Amino acid sequence: MRRRVNFYEVDSIGIVHFSWFARYMEEAEHALWRAAGLSIAPVASEVGFPRVSMSFDFKSPLRFEDEFEVHLRVAAIGRRSMRYGCVVSCEGRVVATGSLTIACVRRTPEGAMEATPIPESIAARFAVAPDPKV
Amino acid sequence: MRRRVNFYEVDSIGIVHFSWFARYMEEAEHALWRAAGLSIAPVASEVGFPRVSMSFDFKSPLRFEDEFEVHLRVAAIGRRSMRYGCVVSCEGRVVATGSLTIACVRRTPEGAMEATPIPESIAARFAVAPDPKV
Amino acid sequence: MRRRVNFYEVDSIGIVHFSWFARYMEEAEHALWRAAGLSIAPVASEVGFPRVSMSFDFKSPLRFEDEFEVHLRVAAIGRRSMRYGCVVSCEGRVVATGSLTIACVRRTPEGAMEATPIPESIAARFAVAPDPKV
Amino acid sequence: MRRRVNFYEVDSIGIVHFSWFARYMEEAEHALWRAAGLSIAPVASEVGFPRVSMSFDFKSPLRFEDEFEVHLRVAAIGRRSMRYGCVVSCEGRVVATGSLTIACVRRTPEGAMEATPIPESIAARFAVAPDPKV
Repeated sequence: MRRRVNFYEVDSIGIVHFSWFARYMEEAEHALWRAAGLSIAPVASEVGFPRVSMSFDFKSPLRFEDEFEVHLRVAAIGRRSMRYGCVVSCEGRVVATGSLTIACVRRTPEGAMEATPIPESIAARFAVAPDPKV
Repeated sequence: MRRRVNFYEVDSIGIVHFSWFARYMEEAEHALWRAAGLSIAPVASEVGFPRVSMSFDFKSPLRFEDEFEVHLRVAAIGRRSMRYGCVVSCEGRVVATGSLTIACVRRTPEGAMEATPIPESIAARFAVAPDPKV
Repeated sequence: MRRRVNFYEVDSIGIVHFSWFARYMEEAEHALWRAAGLSIAPVASEVGFPRVSMSFDFKSPLRFEDEFEVHLRVAAIGRRSMRYGCVVSCEGRVVATGSLTIACVRRTPEGAMEATPIPESIAARFAVAPDPKV
Repeated sequence: MRRRVNFYEVDSIGIVHFSWFARYMEEAEHALWRAAGLSIAPVASEVGFPRVSMSFDFKSPLRFEDEFEVHLRVAAIGRRSMRYGCVVSCEGRVVATGSLTIACVRRTPEGAMEATPIPESIAARFAVAPDPKV
């Protein structure tokens, strides 16, 4: 994913507020799913993908109107969860690295959410990509 | 409603980004509904209240950690819609004035939304308040 | 400007939260300035452009992953302020119309902001465009 | 810190979007600094506190109008950085746990940011609190 920093994403120090990186990573995730012919939240779906954990290391700042890239890769696929790794960069400089784990759940008849295997029609579209840092 | 400006609401000029005023007005709206013994979005509800129009005039800036107040009043109640007026102020100074119109809708069996009268159990909880500026 | 609705812009009703339209209009504004060879917030600038007023009418909903367009035009240019009109549409359907007025200010030596004429180097890059609805 | 979930923080699944937890943790951080008689971003300050890393584990969902608490503690203070641990809970149930590391920087005459010791006037106000889970 490649896009530009919006004005409202920048804080009073003049750099992108750290909470936006969680959103940038998610934008890249949804673009990846679309590239795989999928939507992560279709209107009528039996399963959903809540976020289980995330982490970020911030290396250098992003500023208003910077054009940046988010490289997202599938780092692991389990039966009921999936982990992404991402690198945010700008003009060759690493801005941040992150990780996001999502789980597959379905709604029980009582309305609760319970872990469930990732449907084969979805899992088959993804493959684990090696860590570019190795 | 009274609360403090959060860091992430402030833009790179050092003042609250104008898009936040729509959210401040909505926070005050939901506090008003709670004060009337209602929730604007209960889990199972037959009606919803989409926003039809809004407007804001910005008079003076709000900065990080400023404590501000949002005075929201019901400016008009019709059969199917409601209009609020609001004044955002900080230490006696007017920061912004705004207006918000919401409509009452229900979901048709086909899934579309159509205008419907505000349920009496809701309308009876609100009264039009005079404009403080008059 | 043309882009896709992000997941985090959608509320629990499944439609884009109305506060996002202020941000969409601003994104289109900054894209317009860039197309005119300008940045609205360069790192060292003597003038700034705070928002004076905005208004929106919401016509129909936007949903997750919808591709939408924001058509922004300069509706009026005065000596110290500028007004935009915008139409947000999705697949030929009007989603919202809006208006935004900005003022030109400069910082006084005391740190306050005072109205100042729009620099000629900026004003010369814009022209008033007729209202498409007329 | 104790407050209520706002409507615009909830996503289309009906739960708080995960990006908001970074903001909740930061709100609690700033409340902690205020309780210590400090502001994290005073108007004229020689030092700033950019975020170096964050992580979150999400245990259970938060919904619209839930009242939740953020318990933030200082987990470590070094010469130039500080780490917080936080627990977000709602009615006794753990919603999420998180960690945030910030660094102390100052602006060089060239405008870059470089690591600098936390001023004694700030460091003296904080003490490491034991992990409640131990």
